[in-house]
Amino acid sequence: MEGIGIVGAGIAGLHLGLLLRQHDVPVTIYNDRTAEQLAGGRMLNSVAHHHATITRERALGIDDWNDEEYFYYGHHHYLGGGPRPLRFPGFFSAPSRAVDYRLYLPRLLEEFVARGGEFVVRPVQAADVVRLSERHDLVVIASGRGSMSAMFPRRADKSPYDTPQRKLCVGLYEGVAPSEPRGVTMSVAAGQGELLEIPMYAPAGHVTALLFENVPGGELEMLAEISYEDDPAGFEKLVLEKTREHHPATFERIDPARFHLTGPLDLLQGAVLPAVREDYARLPNGRYVIALGDAHTVVDPVIGQGANCASYSAWALGQVILDDPNFDERFCRKVADRRRNHVHATADWTNLMIRTPPPPHLLRLFAAMSENQAVADEFTENFSHPDRQWDILATPERVTSFLARHGMG
Amino acid sequence: MEGIGIVGAGIAGLHLGLLLRQHDVPVTIYNDRTAEQLAGGRMLNSVAHHHATITRERALGIDDWNDEEYFYYGHHHYLGGGPRPLRFPGFFSAPSRAVDYRLYLPRLLEEFVARGGEFVVRPVQAADVVRLSERHDLVVIASGRGSMSAMFPRRADKSPYDTPQRKLCVGLYEGVAPSEPRGVTMSVAAGQGELLEIPMYAPAGHVTALLFENVPGGELEMLAEISYEDDPAGFEKLVLEKTREHHPATFERIDPARFHLTGPLDLLQGAVLPAVREDYARLPNGRYVIALGDAHTVVDPVIGQGANCASYSAWALGQVILDDPNFDERFCRKVADRRRNHVHATADWTNLMIRTPPPPHLLRLFAAMSENQAVADEFTENFSHPDRQWDILATPERVTSFLARHGMG
Repeated sequence: MEGIGIVGAGIAGLHLGLLLRQHDVPVTIYNDRTAEQLAGGRMLNSVAHHHATITRERALGIDDWNDEEYFYYGHHHYLGGGPRPLRFPGFFSAPSRAVDYRLYLPRLLEEFVARGGEFVVRPVQAADVVRLSERHDLVVIASGRGSMSAMFPRRADKSPYDTPQRKLCVGLYEGVAPSEPRGVTMSVAAGQGELLEIPMYAPAGHVTALLFENVPGGELEMLAEISYEDDPAGFEKLVLEKTREHHPATFERIDPARFHLTGPLDLLQGAVLPAVREDYARLPNGRYVIALGDAHTVVDPVIGQGANCASYSAWALGQVILDDPNFDERFCRKVADRRRNHVHATADWTNLMIRTPPPPHLLRLFAAMSENQAVADEFTENFSHPDRQWDILATPERVTSFLARHGMG
Repeated sequence: MEGIGIVGAGIAGLHLGLLLRQHDVPVTIYNDRTAEQLAGGRMLNSVAHHHATITRERALGIDDWNDEEYFYYGHHHYLGGGPRPLRFPGFFSAPSRAVDYRLYLPRLLEEFVARGGEFVVRPVQAADVVRLSERHDLVVIASGRGSMSAMFPRRADKSPYDTPQRKLCVGLYEGVAPSEPRGVTMSVAAGQGELLEIPMYAPAGHVTALLFENVPGGELEMLAEISYEDDPAGFEKLVLEKTREHHPATFERIDPARFHLTGPLDLLQGAVLPAVREDYARLPNGRYVIALGDAHTVVDPVIGQGANCASYSAWALGQVILDDPNFDERFCRKVADRRRNHVHATADWTNLMIRTPPPPHLLRLFAAMSENQAVADEFTENFSHPDRQWDILATPERVTSFLARHGMG
């Protein structure tokens, strides 16, 4: 038996692989693409890593992108679409950073191999997992691609939506001046969706990711559907128009003359169906496989929690592997217990943020954030602590109790 | 609303109450007996506190019984009833102590009241809980007495027995010389049950608790049934005879001329039906109550884990109360998640120890303990860590893996 087999070279698989290699556990990562294919391909996401994730990266000895230029410090909120827009910032206790995964994943893969990890380029489908399970002490499915997710039943109790709640259009752009202090702008156009404007380090250098989260049937839905390749100038013109109309807090920093997508591959359009799946599955041969990352939980990118949650979950799984390497059902349950609160809170919080119309207690919290910096900062800081965020947001009573703690009756 | 209401002044209620008082949370403990009634009544149990529990007591500022005379250092095992008895010790990393609860509980109650806790002597039944729930922010049921446990359904998946597996007879005795080094003697008479011989500090001073755990229908069952009061000398004579015949490792240190029960109240006979119950219940008024201690989980006393587990569980509950005082279902689930592995491991391990006949992998572990001091010490140390014990014992494969780690193929 050859140690731990991980299917998928995303952040979940790589953080787990690097953690296990630090403790000399043999690890093989299977992926359907080479590092070069990842580096040269279409952009994968526009995710930021918050400080809890960065702390794990430092513990893994990932020392890249630690200069001030890569960091940002909080969120600039703009809540528009109504008669009186709300506008206020919120700050982290330690900064976040967004690095394009076409840089990030190949760099981590390189470290993984340099530290003795085995990397195998081979597409793995659900039908191959039994065979893999007989080669490794434990197989971890850390890829939501292809047929893999279906191994783990979707949990109806934690998966409230049957269709995607946002149509997505995310691209990398030149021509957007950074916000001050540098941060992510979270712009909400009531009834239409959100724009996340993210300072990102990408192959083209320091650029701006514009992630449009558009309500299906709304005025921005077409951004997820029109083709850039058919008419690049028309696409950029439409993005500019929609930004001007619905997301003025970002538009006011755009220089239309310089505004353009940084390349045809620097664009991703589509939609995500949120799902929380079972933590593990028992194979016909009696062995257990663990779901990690997207194979376990898919969240809409609206608050950028998916990758951070996948890293947390990889860490939790790694700790149990190091602590109790007996890969039976007890092991699987310990993994589930250890990550449940964090992972479910991430899904529940994200699902709340994309509910249409937004629930009144969320609007009440936003209004309080606009009036009280400490409230805004705690909400913002909790991008590193989704479990604490859900402690605040899970019910209207909890929002009341949170605001009372801040002296807001 | 008046803070936290706790029903029951056992170790669970008192450890929780003292922890919350350290953080200035208002607490009321309801109990059906006064401190004086507890101190002057029949013995309550023969439990020892292991070092994990003692560490919590120190954190609570309970500084009594810290001299060397109160401590013991490990277990003397005697596995008899077959052709070749096994005899070997195992040692803790830090000592345990057994203090009679007629001393222990009144002392903690005194501290609780001195630290501003409210103590109300009043019998509480399940029917009273709704009213209590409207007086307190949260009600905790920390008593298995009367009708309280029935509020929390028994979990069939964690409660394998429908009848008690041992008939119990525990008394405090003079005339038993301590083992060297001072420890608990765990004597197993194959097919008949166990004798736990415990150095205990009681109202009569340093005495010896003899806890006979007798298989129903076996040769020692009558110890749980004959009356001391009807014929004290006859009772003591029978105890001596049964000890001589089935538990020679203790009998050899008894001076029959001095051997006697220290008092008519220093004896407890009966049986325990093990049960793991749901963590919480929703009242008709929508409020939640939490089960703690015996209201949550009852284990046979054979390995003395009940009180230690109740203290652990009180601590876990207290941490969640301090961290997130929103007493809704999310709160209850967090409590359940935090204590699940420890509490279930305690129940599973205890239930394994009283299975008749004992499972082969348990016997295999005992044999290995007799041959390898490190194996015996790890098993013994894990009386403070039932979760780690269950990592070793949950399956035959886990015992194999544990022994392999100790170089035993």
